[in-house]
Amino acid sequence: MTDRRRERLAALSSRLSAEKIDALVLSSLANIRYLTGFSGSSALLIATPSELHLITDFRYETQVADEVGDIAQVRIEPVSLWTGLWGLLQSIPSVELVGFESAHLLHRDFQRLLSQGSRWQWRPQLNLVEDLRETKDEDEITLILEAGAIATNALARTFPSIHAGMTELEIAGVLEKALRDEGSEEAPFPPIVASGPRSALPHARASSRVVEKGDFLLIDFGAQHGGYCSDVTRTFVMGVPTAEQCDVFGVVRDANHIAAHSIRVGMTGAQADALARSYIEHCGHGEGFGHSLGHGIGLEVHEAPRLASTAKVVLRAGSVVTIEPGIYRPGWGGVRIEDDVHLSANGPQILTNFSRELLEIV
Amino acid sequence: MTDRRRERLAALSSRLSAEKIDALVLSSLANIRYLTGFSGSSALLIATPSELHLITDFRYETQVADEVGDIAQVRIEPVSLWTGLWGLLQSIPSVELVGFESAHLLHRDFQRLLSQGSRWQWRPQLNLVEDLRETKDEDEITLILEAGAIATNALARTFPSIHAGMTELEIAGVLEKALRDEGSEEAPFPPIVASGPRSALPHARASSRVVEKGDFLLIDFGAQHGGYCSDVTRTFVMGVPTAEQCDVFGVVRDANHIAAHSIRVGMTGAQADALARSYIEHCGHGEGFGHSLGHGIGLEVHEAPRLASTAKVVLRAGSVVTIEPGIYRPGWGGVRIEDDVHLSANGPQILTNFSRELLEIV
Repeated sequence: MTDRRRERLAALSSRLSAEKIDALVLSSLANIRYLTGFSGSSALLIATPSELHLITDFRYETQVADEVGDIAQVRIEPVSLWTGLWGLLQSIPSVELVGFESAHLLHRDFQRLLSQGSRWQWRPQLNLVEDLRETKDEDEITLILEAGAIATNALARTFPSIHAGMTELEIAGVLEKALRDEGSEEAPFPPIVASGPRSALPHARASSRVVEKGDFLLIDFGAQHGGYCSDVTRTFVMGVPTAEQCDVFGVVRDANHIAAHSIRVGMTGAQADALARSYIEHCGHGEGFGHSLGHGIGLEVHEAPRLASTAKVVLRAGSVVTIEPGIYRPGWGGVRIEDDVHLSANGPQILTNFSRELLEIV
Repeated sequence: MTDRRRERLAALSSRLSAEKIDALVLSSLANIRYLTGFSGSSALLIATPSELHLITDFRYETQVADEVGDIAQVRIEPVSLWTGLWGLLQSIPSVELVGFESAHLLHRDFQRLLSQGSRWQWRPQLNLVEDLRETKDEDEITLILEAGAIATNALARTFPSIHAGMTELEIAGVLEKALRDEGSEEAPFPPIVASGPRSALPHARASSRVVEKGDFLLIDFGAQHGGYCSDVTRTFVMGVPTAEQCDVFGVVRDANHIAAHSIRVGMTGAQADALARSYIEHCGHGEGFGHSLGHGIGLEVHEAPRLASTAKVVLRAGSVVTIEPGIYRPGWGGVRIEDDVHLSANGPQILTNFSRELLEIV
């Protein structure tokens, strides 16, 4: 990855010059990992057009050396990351205009910057590194593909164990174990296991509800590999589905298929969203699809670009997005089918493969 | 819990008056949960001395009604939480000075507040609600005790399955499944499973390293119950320990015992930290104990108070803290033993019970 990181640093350098700042202080751990490989939970990074300086604490002394190599100069700071920051900034010649990450710096920490008086001039920046991250390189696509395989293999292992009478929490436990057995570093988010009426809650967590015959069973989960995330949803039915369940499921399945196969580089996020939304509306279920079609995925489970009716940004080659249409009816249940899709210049490449038919759990 | 929440709102009211602010905008989800019971991932809360207004989005429409009851007025906002905020603030008479949570508001969102011109005057606040949360009531202590029992029961289930030849990730998977089977809502943080030399990394995650005979095996994990967290660490040995392993382990075990039994309300965080630190130093291992003794735990896995050599704050009755001394030697391994302890007026109550002896895994 070292060569990739040098490319990223070069790209960032151009952005710093374009923004006319001498240095950028990064506080987003995902951005820091992207540029340096460091995966610890405590760090600040200073980027100048020619070099990276990483500040962390003693807990990460061994890890940071392994992960970062020579891409950044590392400072282990005994007092606090901020003390380290002042020391480092002073040691770099002719740094005056310093950018900071407005979307990743708390107001409290912004006050720390101001407490340094007029020594440096602070310039809020938005999305400097996120914008680079939106276009994935081949190594990143491979990692997401592998995270997708871990997720779908874990679901395949879990599927035969599920039966009516289990609680949602128990099913989540079987799935989490399968994810670990498949090698997931950790879960990008706690698995959603939502059954019966709870499947109509787009952000349910697993609960102690017992799964019953006739329920929809919605499972939304992900895996992590090399720091990169996957995000997958499948909806099953406990027993034989009703005609109404088949109907709603079929609309979501087809909306997923249409969007995942028709999305193209050059569309806006809103145009992509409309691929699924107009179909679902056409089928008379528009009111039930209350969220947006999807979001970018990478080092974070939610990142740029957005696929939403308000998203005017044009989709670029190299992005990876979720395609996750759903239909929800409060009190009755809901269906969501979600895949991760790489937007290549040659068309969409689906990274998460697991049956999209309505599987019956007997 | 409704009565408890009314008590909390009354306590917050006094703070608002003391700070001379007409209202407080809360963006910390943990603080919002504490005051209202709402456990969703998207919300803003406005507190005035007499009422609470919760803003969330349509995804939580069903959930918010179940969780919040009549403790807060709920607004489901279709556009954005911020649009909801402006509308709500305007609708409350004679609100002029408005506090916000400096430690929970991003610089970007602070700019949103400023974008509203002179309509309201914004006052940064620190720890208004965190300070209330530091003193737990009986219901909260019970929830943490139950989260502790879930964790230690899950460890007891996991222990017989562990053997040399498993990877750290596999062990994490067995533990995560056991946590779910015991009813943990989710893991407050991904379990740390660190073996051999990796046990010397105080913040290792589980890796694909195969656990071998002779290794220390350090497991640091938690459970969640009713939103409240537990945080437990035990260190095992694979096979028969060496004299050196026994020696280091014994020092940590005794330091844990001394601190967990001697900590008292009225001490400072630094005095509590010194209970373990001075013993470890006395035994000649001071250099190996590079982190602080512990931290408060509750709705968040890290909250007030801190037990650290720099912590001057006096410990209060009703706090729950971790006691987690450790000794780490890079390249060789490390030991940490961590329990959760309720600081009652009558002395410490240990909430996490699992053998603290050096258990051998054969």
